[in-house]
Amino acid sequence: MLEARVKQAAVLKKLLDAIKELVTDGNLDCTDEGIALQAMDNSHVALVSLKLVAEQFESYRCDRNMPLGVNLTSLTKILKCAKDQDVVTLKAPDDADSLGLVFESPKEDRVGEYEMKLMDIDQEHLGIPDTQYDATITMSSSEFQRICRDLAALGESVKIEASKEGVRFSSEGEVGNGSVLLKQSAGNDRGGSSSKNKSVKRDPDEDNENDDEDEERDEKPEIDDDEGEDELDDEDRSKKRKSNGKAKPAKKAKKDDSAGTDEIGVSIILEKQVSLTFSLKYLTNFAKSAPLAREVSLHMSNDVPLLVQFDFEQGTLQFFLAPKVSFFFAFLTVKNK
Amino acid sequence: MLEARVKQAAVLKKLLDAIKELVTDGNLDCTDEGIALQAMDNSHVALVSLKLVAEQFESYRCDRNMPLGVNLTSLTKILKCAKDQDVVTLKAPDDADSLGLVFESPKEDRVGEYEMKLMDIDQEHLGIPDTQYDATITMSSSEFQRICRDLAALGESVKIEASKEGVRFSSEGEVGNGSVLLKQSAGNDRGGSSSKNKSVKRDPDEDNENDDEDEERDEKPEIDDDEGEDELDDEDRSKKRKSNGKAKPAKKAKKDDSAGTDEIGVSIILEKQVSLTFSLKYLTNFAKSAPLAREVSLHMSNDVPLLVQFDFEQGTLQFFLAPKVSFFFAFLTVKNK
Amino acid sequence: MLEARVKQAAVLKKLLDAIKELVTDGNLDCTDEGIALQAMDNSHVALVSLKLVAEQFESYRCDRNMPLGVNLTSLTKILKCAKDQDVVTLKAPDDADSLGLVFESPKEDRVGEYEMKLMDIDQEHLGIPDTQYDATITMSSSEFQRICRDLAALGESVKIEASKEGVRFSSEGEVGNGSVLLKQSAGNDRGGSSSKNKSVKRDPDEDNENDDEDEERDEKPEIDDDEGEDELDDEDRSKKRKSNGKAKPAKKAKKDDSAGTDEIGVSIILEKQVSLTFSLKYLTNFAKSAPLAREVSLHMSNDVPLLVQFDFEQGTLQFFLAPKVSFFFAFLTVKNK
Repeated sequence: MLEARVKQAAVLKKLLDAIKELVTDGNLDCTDEGIALQAMDNSHVALVSLKLVAEQFESYRCDRNMPLGVNLTSLTKILKCAKDQDVVTLKAPDDADSLGLVFESPKEDRVGEYEMKLMDIDQEHLGIPDTQYDATITMSSSEFQRICRDLAALGESVKIEASKEGVRFSSEGEVGNGSVLLKQSAGNDRGGSSSKNKSVKRDPDEDNENDDEDEERDEKPEIDDDEGEDELDDEDRSKKRKSNGKAKPAKKAKKDDSAGTDEIGVSIILEKQVSLTFSLKYLTNFAKSAPLAREVSLHMSNDVPLLVQFDFEQGTLQFFLAPKVSFFFAFLTVKNK
Repeated sequence: MLEARVKQAAVLKKLLDAIKELVTDGNLDCTDEGIALQAMDNSHVALVSLKLVAEQFESYRCDRNMPLGVNLTSLTKILKCAKDQDVVTLKAPDDADSLGLVFESPKEDRVGEYEMKLMDIDQEHLGIPDTQYDATITMSSSEFQRICRDLAALGESVKIEASKEGVRFSSEGEVGNGSVLLKQSAGNDRGGSSSKNKSVKRDPDEDNENDDEDEERDEKPEIDDDEGEDELDDEDRSKKRKSNGKAKPAKKAKKDDSAGTDEIGVSIILEKQVSLTFSLKYLTNFAKSAPLAREVSLHMSNDVPLLVQFDFEQGTLQFFLAPKVSFFFAFLTVKNK
Repeated sequence: MLEARVKQAAVLKKLLDAIKELVTDGNLDCTDEGIALQAMDNSHVALVSLKLVAEQFESYRCDRNMPLGVNLTSLTKILKCAKDQDVVTLKAPDDADSLGLVFESPKEDRVGEYEMKLMDIDQEHLGIPDTQYDATITMSSSEFQRICRDLAALGESVKIEASKEGVRFSSEGEVGNGSVLLKQSAGNDRGGSSSKNKSVKRDPDEDNENDDEDEERDEKPEIDDDEGEDELDDEDRSKKRKSNGKAKPAKKAKKDDSAGTDEIGVSIILEKQVSLTFSLKYLTNFAKSAPLAREVSLHMSNDVPLLVQFDFEQGTLQFFLAPKVSFFFAFLTVKNK
């Protein structure tokens, strides 16, 4: 049986808002590690992968693996019946044909009990290869959303170019053309204390020794900071440990999502310059997840699908999108679960 | 002639917003006691009864009884021309064929003068029998609105069950089913100081002596409170005098509508358990009156129309709705005015 | 070449919002005096005239006169890509076939670069005769917008009557009729310190000597104020120098748009009583410019188009509209540029 308790309904609501326009149905794969959902979007161009980590639930119990086939539109309807601050408990017995949802107000004077019918979904599980990305851009999620929305008014696709200077998004259409350049945050301002560590353009040589150890590399510079920059507050420290999106996000330390600053710099880790073109329609959809996390990371390599990743307290939401010139399916290896 | 002065246009606007989707045309029955409007909804399933009490107007004069036939859509249009803080004066000479409305800004630097054409409406006046309800639930009007809206996303009708434990609203539909349980407020918390007085489940025996004297019963406990609970503030006191909806609301003391708290408990007066099913479409419409009053009371007996009542400073707004299994018209005795 | 720098994108956005529903295409006439746009509305009933003064730009350079034919819908789309606080630079080389727009964030960490295709627009330049208006009403722009919106719900046209008492807007339609009277602000209240100077109903005789010198007349009373009303703050002073809309607004001192008060009185300069009727559809459109300036001035003479004027920090926006009984084109003399 499954019994999983989430502290605030708001998180689940935001997740559903982000996913439901891309995906109609999907299996919630419940295991003792947590709940995962992976699905191609309705037109089979993008891939959504959500992971909610068992340890980040208020309480979590799942005796045996079970896929819960849900219609996301129905789930959205039912979650709307929860108030943002409600505690949500998901319940399903073994071999359940419906998912129970209990919404309790913080003062426990109101209890909503809902049952949603489940469906059998025959879904192939797509193995996502562990990829070394040539460029990893971390930026404000709301800035990302804004840029996608702005450029979508001009054209249908956006070229994303990552370079030492910063990241440039450009688009063109009938009205004219436009581009937005986000400069990489400087080392000595607020947003830069983390980018100093992460965004150094490294020589390929120097890189070989720790190509598989991005996590360690991120941590190392902290030692230097402790000597020279004692004024760093906790929030800056936690940022440094932030995921760099290597498809193992669930195990990484989480960033402090409640941080009060709205000044999020841009940081870029660059193996080599990358320039790729994507459909704005999909990016705009991905960007709707902005309320989930203050930061988003874009991971790019030539001829490989873009990974757009949101790390939030309870887990990770990833979107994959093939560049306009390449072939998406070649990248994905179909595995049976 | 009629000349009635209302301190704030906002009240009239909220009233019209609440009624205009149920009723298209209606007679404003002006007498020296105030202004009343009673009308079946457009599909003749629900009954709306509004009473504005003469004493609660800034000033009020009505020399002889006159029905003013108004189109509520037109009246809404004209009221939109008033700012919320404007003082409104309604004016009609005897045998008027139009209703005059004057909107004055508080600083008296702006005067709007409007005339709305009246119409002849041949309306039967429905006598509403004085009913003893088995259950009277008092709760936050916005919570009521929220529950109606939430459950309307699931199904078409709602079962309302009042018991000692609390009140449960439940609904079911294609997506699944759901219920919301509101627990009765405990005696020792804030919302409970009134429920202690009103929500005690009384034995039928004990009840016989004062079945027709609900008003007195409501006032009585206040004497006890003066001894033991001196920490009660004025707001709590006024709540105790609140109407319990026995169709004579105009004569009852009004609650303090400007009270700042948003913590409104649930109180239930229960003769016997009641469980009735109603159309959510209508309840959702009634619930739109929530901006009028912080509290709403639901009055229920088996096989009798539900009474949903909003008491506000200037009067009372009542909605009657037949349960889904019973016959509405049998309940109403048609009288000629 | 043109290179003009505007401190805040918000101003340009508001301008476009105000104009784009009336006009589809138009020439931005760039000269060393600034940028002007003049166009008939799409149905050739109203005339829009915008002037942005060279001195009010952050920096301004225009080597030779050039008309830049822009599609206002496209320009609106591109301006939406600027954040309100962005610094905007407009750039066009001589013989440009596109207009460059650069949006820089205040912190200079984000740069948007856009190019909009230009078009050839063969536009006659309409000479607007310098008119002495019989009545000039200055009032809150948001109040003007509100009144237009309110009355548009009643009827299709509005009669505007300016008299010693104040200004009355009235309309009638199927539902009934209505009017709003705005009383002229008294001399001793806040809004009145300016109206005392400007709104005195002057005898025609007394007036002859300075009929062509409105500017001087507006300044003169300031001397008296310096003696008797030392408590006047700078904001009140600047109000006195406000344009009175004589079609030479660009040379007049600008009012302080950032003033914090929302108490804007009504002031009326009256040569003789005026009563004219206008289409509410157009006035409602003009009134959408309210976000540009706290005040609007209405300039009226019998049988002459109404002038609705918004003075803002960077320039002036004028709308002309023929009264319902007169002929608009007779008023305008067509000149070749």
